[in-house]
Amino acid sequence: MSLFIYNTLTKKKELFIPLLLKRVGIYVCGPTVYGDSHLGHARSAIAFDTLFRYLMYLGYKVRYVRNVTDVGHLMNDSDLEKDKIVEKARLESIEPMEVVQYYLNRYHEIMNELNVLPPSIEPHASGHIIEQILLSKEILDKGYAYESNGSIYFDVEKYNKKYSYGKLSGQNISDLLKSIQKSNVQKEKRNIIDFALWKKASQNHIMRWKSPWGEGFPGWHLECTTMSKKYLGDIFDIHGGGMDLIFPHHECEIAQNLVLTGHEGAKYWMHNNMITINGKKMGKSFGNFISLEHLFNGSHPLLTKSYTPMTIRFFIVRSHYRSVIDFSNRDLESSEKELSRLLEASNNIKKLKVKTENSKMNIENLRNKAIEAMDDDLNTPVVISCLFDAAKLINLALIEQIKLTSENIQQLNDLFQLFLFNLLGIKDDFYKKNFLSPFGGAIDLLLQIRMQAKQRKDWITSDFIRYKLIELGFEIRDTKNGVEWELK
Amino acid sequence: MSLFIYNTLTKKKELFIPLLLKRVGIYVCGPTVYGDSHLGHARSAIAFDTLFRYLMYLGYKVRYVRNVTDVGHLMNDSDLEKDKIVEKARLESIEPMEVVQYYLNRYHEIMNELNVLPPSIEPHASGHIIEQILLSKEILDKGYAYESNGSIYFDVEKYNKKYSYGKLSGQNISDLLKSIQKSNVQKEKRNIIDFALWKKASQNHIMRWKSPWGEGFPGWHLECTTMSKKYLGDIFDIHGGGMDLIFPHHECEIAQNLVLTGHEGAKYWMHNNMITINGKKMGKSFGNFISLEHLFNGSHPLLTKSYTPMTIRFFIVRSHYRSVIDFSNRDLESSEKELSRLLEASNNIKKLKVKTENSKMNIENLRNKAIEAMDDDLNTPVVISCLFDAAKLINLALIEQIKLTSENIQQLNDLFQLFLFNLLGIKDDFYKKNFLSPFGGAIDLLLQIRMQAKQRKDWITSDFIRYKLIELGFEIRDTKNGVEWELK
Repeated sequence: MSLFIYNTLTKKKELFIPLLLKRVGIYVCGPTVYGDSHLGHARSAIAFDTLFRYLMYLGYKVRYVRNVTDVGHLMNDSDLEKDKIVEKARLESIEPMEVVQYYLNRYHEIMNELNVLPPSIEPHASGHIIEQILLSKEILDKGYAYESNGSIYFDVEKYNKKYSYGKLSGQNISDLLKSIQKSNVQKEKRNIIDFALWKKASQNHIMRWKSPWGEGFPGWHLECTTMSKKYLGDIFDIHGGGMDLIFPHHECEIAQNLVLTGHEGAKYWMHNNMITINGKKMGKSFGNFISLEHLFNGSHPLLTKSYTPMTIRFFIVRSHYRSVIDFSNRDLESSEKELSRLLEASNNIKKLKVKTENSKMNIENLRNKAIEAMDDDLNTPVVISCLFDAAKLINLALIEQIKLTSENIQQLNDLFQLFLFNLLGIKDDFYKKNFLSPFGGAIDLLLQIRMQAKQRKDWITSDFIRYKLIELGFEIRDTKNGVEWELK
Repeated sequence: MSLFIYNTLTKKKELFIPLLLKRVGIYVCGPTVYGDSHLGHARSAIAFDTLFRYLMYLGYKVRYVRNVTDVGHLMNDSDLEKDKIVEKARLESIEPMEVVQYYLNRYHEIMNELNVLPPSIEPHASGHIIEQILLSKEILDKGYAYESNGSIYFDVEKYNKKYSYGKLSGQNISDLLKSIQKSNVQKEKRNIIDFALWKKASQNHIMRWKSPWGEGFPGWHLECTTMSKKYLGDIFDIHGGGMDLIFPHHECEIAQNLVLTGHEGAKYWMHNNMITINGKKMGKSFGNFISLEHLFNGSHPLLTKSYTPMTIRFFIVRSHYRSVIDFSNRDLESSEKELSRLLEASNNIKKLKVKTENSKMNIENLRNKAIEAMDDDLNTPVVISCLFDAAKLINLALIEQIKLTSENIQQLNDLFQLFLFNLLGIKDDFYKKNFLSPFGGAIDLLLQIRMQAKQRKDWITSDFIRYKLIELGFEIRDTKNGVEWELK
């Protein structure tokens, strides 16, 4: 085992050595469930799903924690006093948890369609308020935070004297101070760079809990520190998330962790790159995001057609997780074509004729090359190029340009099973549901009857079948190896 | 609107009058997620799903809260001291939330297969510890609870002096005292009938939170009081659950509610009856439960075959929710047959020939009768008998024994859509996926070619098609109205 992963904290690729033998703990920042998921969410989920799958393949028992940020900032615009809302009209006022449940259910459905495995634990921020209050207190007690008007702020300047704020993002505090817009200045803070561990709830803030400092709600950065500690321990293996979370979110997590335990928390910090549209970052706050539902049904003005969840997944894994992906219909369409070429090759394996000797080739080399690529910081594009090399062999053997032994055929099959289906997480439901079902058999039967009709020169029947199948949406191809069909 | 529901609290059927115009709040006790769901869980979920669907049909905006009991009682059997577990081997020790996540995901999958709509909010007990501590304190302050050895117990005897303990279950406290086994006596309690609001965690208890009384965890009864208050208010419309929860769970909820606010909490208390096996209650604690997965794959010794989720759902709604259902393969098989008769009739509607006049009949009456049945405490068996009456009309019209106008046909279609699919929650995916797909069209094409072969007396071809389709698993029936097919 020699998996290397790029560690944002040290800025180099490092050999992955787990803290415990055979076990790995991963924490990844999950969705904020107050809106629909977009392509950027899919990218992060798929990047770390690939890591999760590969670690399990390597034989590790993985505890994969991906949180749900459900502590929202909904305000009640009702004029009623708070008590009145509580007592008289609870059912009529907005309930943040109802909004959360709605978007969380949608997120789960979409992750399922993308074949993203459920993490081992999906803790909710709202389920860890006590722990967040306790950690706020602990940071206060250690002198790295202060109370101001019912809120608790982390004292970045003081922290920076002992530790180094900016070590993850590679910035220094004075540059950071310059880059923060003056409009963000809050009177409550000693320094504009300070961040909240606990925020006082304003009159209209709906989600609120009692704390030693009055009613309020926890800060976002403390969420992840709290839940990673609770489920993985003070020191754990891998912390992941999108690159946009490096600063301030993960920088602040590291600051909190160092004050609490003297350790950054995770040993390896991994970040997937962004998805851009015309070179601009895609995101809700930029007003240019394409939701996954848009992609699945083609209903966004920037989309020329709809794309299946598996096309989206392939579009994402065909780039390395640390490269920028620029959204384009052209690339999505080519992903669709490439994926269907690979699936076709995989489905053709069982049609191959077994030979007693083979043309000189080494399929084991392809497998080794693909494993090396996975070991090299999850280099999925190289894995895919190996699959294309394998597809080429299959296609050549199909037209009997090369010979394959039964062992070769088994190796090719194993290669697709392991890399395309298991590690890259592609599902081929269409094939299983249709080609292998009685209905697939019925199409074969129709083509057989058409062949028989042709043989007895009953052109009316053979053309009738062909015409009707095309009308139903099937594509019929006469090839050297017989007739092939596909549902378009 | 004149929905009557049976209120366990008053022991009669009562007209349902919501507290707010147009809105309904429902709280139902959900699963404990430390094991697989069995038929009993399906019954409760489906009973209240039917209520949820009917209330929405009646035009109410429903906030349906179904909790998840995830505060478990796992013990750590490790010899390490607690601190060692926390610091050194967190990843190696059992994590209750990992167990919870596993079973919760399975529960959601199964609910989805049973076509149970997700509730509006699915709050977790572990997400409401602060609120449970606050309510324990409040009951303490009001004098109806006492602290003993780090635990807080509700003082049933004192409560019973002012209120009446046993009002929901119809028992009185002295009978209850006699029925409680002496082995249950706990030294900590003043009275064996007292119940815990907060329990001190023993050394090995894994799930534990800090409280004013030391580390511990909340009592089960307080969970539901806390979450129903938080999401629905102090007084809300309907509280539901299985009959086995009437005592002690709901009795204790009512006691807590009365002390806290002077009101029982819910206005209507609804309870679904149990599923028995050979007359004995099915349940984990009785060692005789059949999990839903067993039913779906037929892998339990008591099962003669597997049953689809829709057969299970139909098996449940074909009895009134307040009747006992005794499990039997015979009844499951007859449910399967009955459901397929209804689905077949529903699919035959579009084959009906429109006549300009109709045989005297009143389909509107069937609809009214079915609505009256739903209004009568969700009398789903009567709804199903109306659907069978409608199926009879369809079958008679199909063989032209009776005449139906286009309006009649529309009414029949509406009847099936509303009652079978929308309110009873039956899905007909098989039909949609197969009959309406290009593959369904291909089967029709094969049968058409077989017919043409027959007409030109080409028996070889016609028999070949029939034989091959049967081999693939299709059933072919020659009827007066042409050839029909079904995938067995």
